[in-house]
Amino acid sequence: MKAWRNPCIVSFSQALAEFKSGRQTPRDFLERCIANVEQHESRIKAFVTLDLKAARKAADASVRRYRAGQPLSMVDGCPVGIKDIMATADMPTQMGSPAFKGWQSGQDAACVQAMRQGGAIIFGKTVTTEFAIGFSGPSTNPFDPKRTPGGSSSGSAAAVGSGMLPVALGTQTQGSTLRPASYCGALGFKPTVGALHTAGIHPLSTTCDHLGVIGATLEDIWRVASQISLGVGSPGYGFLNGASATLPTAVKPGKLIRLYTRGWTEIDTNTGEAFEEVTQALQDAGVEILSKENDQRVAAFEDALERDVDGALDIVAYEMKWPYQDYIARFGDAIGKRIHGLIDRAHKMTPADYTGLLGKRRAIQQHCRELAASIGADGYVTLASSGPAILGFEYSGSRTFIVYGSWLGFPAFSLPLMHSDGLPFGLQLLGIDHRDGNLCSTARWIMREFS
Amino acid sequence: MKAWRNPCIVSFSQALAEFKSGRQTPRDFLERCIANVEQHESRIKAFVTLDLKAARKAADASVRRYRAGQPLSMVDGCPVGIKDIMATADMPTQMGSPAFKGWQSGQDAACVQAMRQGGAIIFGKTVTTEFAIGFSGPSTNPFDPKRTPGGSSSGSAAAVGSGMLPVALGTQTQGSTLRPASYCGALGFKPTVGALHTAGIHPLSTTCDHLGVIGATLEDIWRVASQISLGVGSPGYGFLNGASATLPTAVKPGKLIRLYTRGWTEIDTNTGEAFEEVTQALQDAGVEILSKENDQRVAAFEDALERDVDGALDIVAYEMKWPYQDYIARFGDAIGKRIHGLIDRAHKMTPADYTGLLGKRRAIQQHCRELAASIGADGYVTLASSGPAILGFEYSGSRTFIVYGSWLGFPAFSLPLMHSDGLPFGLQLLGIDHRDGNLCSTARWIMREFS
Repeated sequence: MKAWRNPCIVSFSQALAEFKSGRQTPRDFLERCIANVEQHESRIKAFVTLDLKAARKAADASVRRYRAGQPLSMVDGCPVGIKDIMATADMPTQMGSPAFKGWQSGQDAACVQAMRQGGAIIFGKTVTTEFAIGFSGPSTNPFDPKRTPGGSSSGSAAAVGSGMLPVALGTQTQGSTLRPASYCGALGFKPTVGALHTAGIHPLSTTCDHLGVIGATLEDIWRVASQISLGVGSPGYGFLNGASATLPTAVKPGKLIRLYTRGWTEIDTNTGEAFEEVTQALQDAGVEILSKENDQRVAAFEDALERDVDGALDIVAYEMKWPYQDYIARFGDAIGKRIHGLIDRAHKMTPADYTGLLGKRRAIQQHCRELAASIGADGYVTLASSGPAILGFEYSGSRTFIVYGSWLGFPAFSLPLMHSDGLPFGLQLLGIDHRDGNLCSTARWIMREFS
Repeated sequence: MKAWRNPCIVSFSQALAEFKSGRQTPRDFLERCIANVEQHESRIKAFVTLDLKAARKAADASVRRYRAGQPLSMVDGCPVGIKDIMATADMPTQMGSPAFKGWQSGQDAACVQAMRQGGAIIFGKTVTTEFAIGFSGPSTNPFDPKRTPGGSSSGSAAAVGSGMLPVALGTQTQGSTLRPASYCGALGFKPTVGALHTAGIHPLSTTCDHLGVIGATLEDIWRVASQISLGVGSPGYGFLNGASATLPTAVKPGKLIRLYTRGWTEIDTNTGEAFEEVTQALQDAGVEILSKENDQRVAAFEDALERDVDGALDIVAYEMKWPYQDYIARFGDAIGKRIHGLIDRAHKMTPADYTGLLGKRRAIQQHCRELAASIGADGYVTLASSGPAILGFEYSGSRTFIVYGSWLGFPAFSLPLMHSDGLPFGLQLLGIDHRDGNLCSTARWIMREFS
C-alpha cells in the first residue's frame, strides 16, 4: 500500500549529503526554509519570534565548518524551531501567556543548548498554547487555514508540516506532540519520559512532561533526538536508547497489538476505514495484529487502561500546583480559565490521592510491559488523533488517543500515513519504555513498507 | 553527656505556642530577628537581598491570621532565608555570580511558593558560593569572623547560627547543607534526594542536587521540610517520609554503624576526641556501635565506599554540562575557574563513563541499604565536617565526610553537639532512603539524650 505523502516537507537529512559534497550549503538550505516562511507564514502564523539575521549568521558559520570538513555534530546546519515554552538565551520565552510577554530566561534550555552547540540554527520560537495547556495561539493548519494545527506544539507542527522547517521541538504532557504532528502531516516522536532532558522547559507536570520532536522524516527526528541526548545527557537515566547519527535499522515487527481505546467512539467513517486499510496492509505484509477482538489478554489490558486513565489528568493537575498556584495568585485573570480549573481540581486532591495515582500508573506501566512481552509484540498501534484536524481554533482537538502513551511515559511515534479529503492524520506506534531505538526500527520498517 | 549548645539560636517552634496564646506575635518574633540582623549582619554578611518592609507587612498579615485563629499552615509567621540560587518572584536571584547580577526569575521556586503560601515570611536572599559550587561569597562565621561559615549555603547557615533567622533553605550537591550547618552551630537536614521539590532552584546536577533545611531546632527544620513537601509535593516520589506538623517521636536506636571514611585522616586530636566522647556516650546509653574495627561487613562497606566515591564528582561534572557549557560560552571568565575545571572534566567523559557511574551509584546505594538491614542498624554516624570551621574564606572547607551521603542520595542530619575551643561542629547521622521520618526519630532521641 502506498500511503499519503506530505508534498510540502523539507528534509534536513536528505540535504546533508549535499552539504558534505558541497553541492548545497547549509545557507542554501536555510534560504529554502526562509522562502517558505515568506510564502506561508502570513497564513500559518507558526512563529512568535524569528531572528533571520542570526539564523543566516549561524548558517554561514556552518558553511565554513562543512567546507573545512569539520561539522560540529550530526545536526550542524539544521534549522530548528523552538516551542516558546523552552528557554532561549537570545530570544524571549513567552509561554503563549500575556503574563510572560517579553520575558527573558537568561539561559538556553538543555535541549536548545545541545542543538546550538551541535551547530544547529536556532531559527525562531514557535507558537504554543498558553503554557502548553491553556488557550490556543494564532497558528493555522497548513492544509486548511480554517482548521487548528493542533496543540500545544501548534507552531512547531505547522512549521514542519508546511516545509518552513525540517524539524521543531515540541513537548507532550497529554497529547501535545503527536496530535499536532498528526494534524499537520509531520512525523512526531515522544520518547520515553526522561529520555530527553527537559530542564529549561517551562513545566506543567514534572512526571508527565516529555520533550518531543516533530520532523519531516524519521531520520530528521532521530538525529535531533540523538543530538539532544548525547549533547547534554538525560540525568539519572543515561541516554536515549539507540541514540546515534545513524537511524536504527528497519526491522519488520512480528506482531503488533492494536488498541481501540475509548477514542474509537470519536472517529468518523473515513478515519476508521483509513486505519483499517493500514492494519490490513500490515497483515498483508505478514505482521500479526492482535486486538481485543481476538485476544483476551488485550481485552483485559484495554479494560485496565480505561479504568484508571482519567487519573492521568489528576497527576498533571496536582503537579501543576507549582508554579501555577503562584501565577494565579500573582496574575489572576491573565492566566486562562483552563489553568484555573486544573488548579481547582488539584485543590480537591489530598496527598493520599496523589500517591494513589502514582501507584496506579506504576501498575499500568507494568501491565503494558508484561502484555507486550507475553505476546511477543514489538509495539502497539492505534490512531495518533481522532482523525484529521478539526475546524476552528478555540479547541486544539481531542487528546483521547494519545493520553494513554503520555500517562504511561512510553515512547510513541505519529507516522503521517493516512488522509481524509486531503487532510492528513497519523498512525500511532507505541512501544515499551527504554526501548526507543527498537521502536524506531519498527517505525522505519513501516514507513518504508508504505512508501 | 551534656553537649555543646549554641547560645545564639532563635527557634520558631518554641515561639509558636505564644503566637497561639497571643503572648507574642509573629511581628514581635520578626522584630527579634531584625534586631539580631542589626547587631550582627555588618560582621556576618549573610544576606544578598533583604526586604524588611515586605517582611514586616507579611508578619502583620500573619498576626491577623493567628488572632482570628486561622494560621495558614505549620509555618505561618516563620521568617525564612532563601539561598540566592532559588527563584523568588519578588527579589533578584543572583547565584553568587556576576553573570546574573540583578537577574529576575519571574517566579518562585517550588520551595519558596510552598513557604509563602503557608504564610512564612520570605525574609531575604542568603549568600551562596558562585552557583553553589564556585568561588565564595562575603559571609563570615558567627563564632569567628576570621573563619568561613562553610559553603555553599554560607549565608543560610550563618544567619541561623547567629540567631538572625530560625530557618533558612540551603542545597546540597556535595556538602553544601551539612558542612555550613556544622560550622555555624545550626542543625542541618538533607532529605532523601527527590523528597523535596527542587524545581526553580538553579541546577548543578539534576540527580545530586538536594534541597536542604538549616534550622535552630529539629522541630523548626521538620516543620519547614514538611510544609514544602505537603505544599507542592515531590513529583513522582509522593511526599517526604513522615511529613507532618508534629515532629516524629523520639526513638532510641538499637544499633548505629560508625563510619570512618578517608575523612578520618583530615581531623585533629580535639575533633577526634570530641567524636569519641559522643560515641562513648551513645554506648553508655545502651546504643550498640558497630564499625570496621569490630564488624567485617562494615569494613567491606567502607572499602566499597572508598573505591568508587570519586565518581560522585564526575556525575556532578557531567550533569553540569547543562547549563554551564552555555554559560562558559556566553560569559567566559565571568564564570569562575572551578566551574571551568569541572566542565573540562565533563568533556573528558564519554556517555559510557556516565552510565557506568550511574550503575556504580545504584550498587553502593543497595550495599548501604543491605548493610543497615543485615545489621539491624537505625543509621550511620560520622562527623558532619572535618572539625570546626577553618580559617580564611577562599576555601569553604572539606567536603570529605559529607560527600558520601550526597552521592548515595540518602537522608542525613548534622546535629550541633560538639565543639573545639568554642567553635562548633556537628555529628552526622545518615539514614536509608525514603525513611527520613525514621531518621528524624533517631535524631530527636540523640538531641534529647545530649541536652
